[in-house]
Amino acid sequence: MATFSRDIQVHFSDTDPAGIIFYPRYFEMTSGLIEDWFADALGHPFNAMHQGMEHGVPTISLDISFSAASRIADRLRLTLAVERLGKSSITLDITAICGDEERFKMRQVLVYAALGGKVRPKPLPAQLRARMEPFLTTESAKDS
Amino acid sequence: MATFSRDIQVHFSDTDPAGIIFYPRYFEMTSGLIEDWFADALGHPFNAMHQGMEHGVPTISLDISFSAASRIADRLRLTLAVERLGKSSITLDITAICGDEERFKMRQVLVYAALGGKVRPKPLPAQLRARMEPFLTTESAKDS
Amino acid sequence: MATFSRDIQVHFSDTDPAGIIFYPRYFEMTSGLIEDWFADALGHPFNAMHQGMEHGVPTISLDISFSAASRIADRLRLTLAVERLGKSSITLDITAICGDEERFKMRQVLVYAALGGKVRPKPLPAQLRARMEPFLTTESAKDS
Amino acid sequence: MATFSRDIQVHFSDTDPAGIIFYPRYFEMTSGLIEDWFADALGHPFNAMHQGMEHGVPTISLDISFSAASRIADRLRLTLAVERLGKSSITLDITAICGDEERFKMRQVLVYAALGGKVRPKPLPAQLRARMEPFLTTESAKDS
Repeated sequence: MATFSRDIQVHFSDTDPAGIIFYPRYFEMTSGLIEDWFADALGHPFNAMHQGMEHGVPTISLDISFSAASRIADRLRLTLAVERLGKSSITLDITAICGDEERFKMRQVLVYAALGGKVRPKPLPAQLRARMEPFLTTESAKDS
Repeated sequence: MATFSRDIQVHFSDTDPAGIIFYPRYFEMTSGLIEDWFADALGHPFNAMHQGMEHGVPTISLDISFSAASRIADRLRLTLAVERLGKSSITLDITAICGDEERFKMRQVLVYAALGGKVRPKPLPAQLRARMEPFLTTESAKDS
Repeated sequence: MATFSRDIQVHFSDTDPAGIIFYPRYFEMTSGLIEDWFADALGHPFNAMHQGMEHGVPTISLDISFSAASRIADRLRLTLAVERLGKSSITLDITAICGDEERFKMRQVLVYAALGGKVRPKPLPAQLRARMEPFLTTESAKDS
Repeated sequence: MATFSRDIQVHFSDTDPAGIIFYPRYFEMTSGLIEDWFADALGHPFNAMHQGMEHGVPTISLDISFSAASRIADRLRLTLAVERLGKSSITLDITAICGDEERFKMRQVLVYAALGGKVRPKPLPAQLRARMEPFLTTESAKDS
């Protein structure tokens, strides 16, 4: 099983007057992580999907639990794996740690979709699906 | 039962190259909604909580479902109610609509806490709790 | 001479651990101000310009002086006027005050341009130009 | 003469519906560059300045010219040098290139200041000044 990781440093500007990270920043970080995964690991950069094919992977739901606060100068490691591949949907597990302390745990569901006008789910292209499979957390998750 | 609402317009800068709102912007909007609720409806502005009392209401978890995409110039109405009040925790229901179309539905759990050093949950002050009660979605939610 | 104004409240999330506004937030505010001016006062909303006409008004330069720090809960009034209209360029004067205290003063130059591929300046459409003229700070500025 | 650089990739979320970077994102990038320079090259991390000493380096002015648009997946190199050191002020030259194409050129003036209550300029500490001097673009700039 493969995972995809990225290290990010918490900057001054990510934190609020309490010295704690302003949590919407986390979603910018995880959005960047997913984008880099598509470009660097899956060979499907967002801009190619959008421009050439009018497709994208909008998020349809997410849930997140924050375990401990992040502060300025913390170096976070974000890691992504695939929990489940549906016909069109991609369920991701994303975690952030700082050293060995967990900071958050997130499940995020994307859907492969045509974007012109109304968002319409489309079957995941076979090649993209094949490149995602090594990132599945369990074999059983594939049969769906 | 009371609710707290705020209208927000989607700007060009909130949207991505697909013309669809970049969802981390939603969390900035709901964070502002919660902040305004504390200041305008509860009489507990964030800056007073932080500066005078070293307390705050960090988010410990949230889950959100996106029902339809928002686009430039959409005018969203965000509405907040309280689903449950625990000893220290506050569970919020937040929805966004555009006209009569739902855009997202979120449940967000905050915890009243001391912020110096490690985040430590503290009992909700009686006055703050009393001011939140009118926003409870059901009477039954109070007994916890 | 007309001006275009908008009131914006500084939120917790706009400020850094020093309790002072994180200045990049100002540019999101002024970007929104300019966008609202195009949509509400000039009748040329950004989305129509982009989608129908493949035109836009990218910024080519700006300079800003910060006079005093903004803090949480400050209510800022942003005001825009036009200093000069060139063939393709629009020079804006933007100021922010809180009560009667100036917070910043900015000059920002936009250029009307075709956006497909490389950005190419185009003459300001006559109607758009005519609608901008009432916002000119001096009559003399028109002859350029 | 030393310079301080950092490579940053333009993400999907940094760009607007025209596919061009939303310029306020540049200021988040340069803010991070300055913060990293203080922490990594000068040995004066922002959090130590703020927490221990109640000092900071707020920006008092900046001017920027954009030479060419940045787009998704562009890899930018941001480079900082010091143009001038005043008693309290630090004038920075910051440039961004992509390959050998210039994207922007910025001059930004910071002031070393006490931050409690009103921002009050203070003389640059001798050690901090000494560590900045190698980054001066010209020898002559020192005598001020």
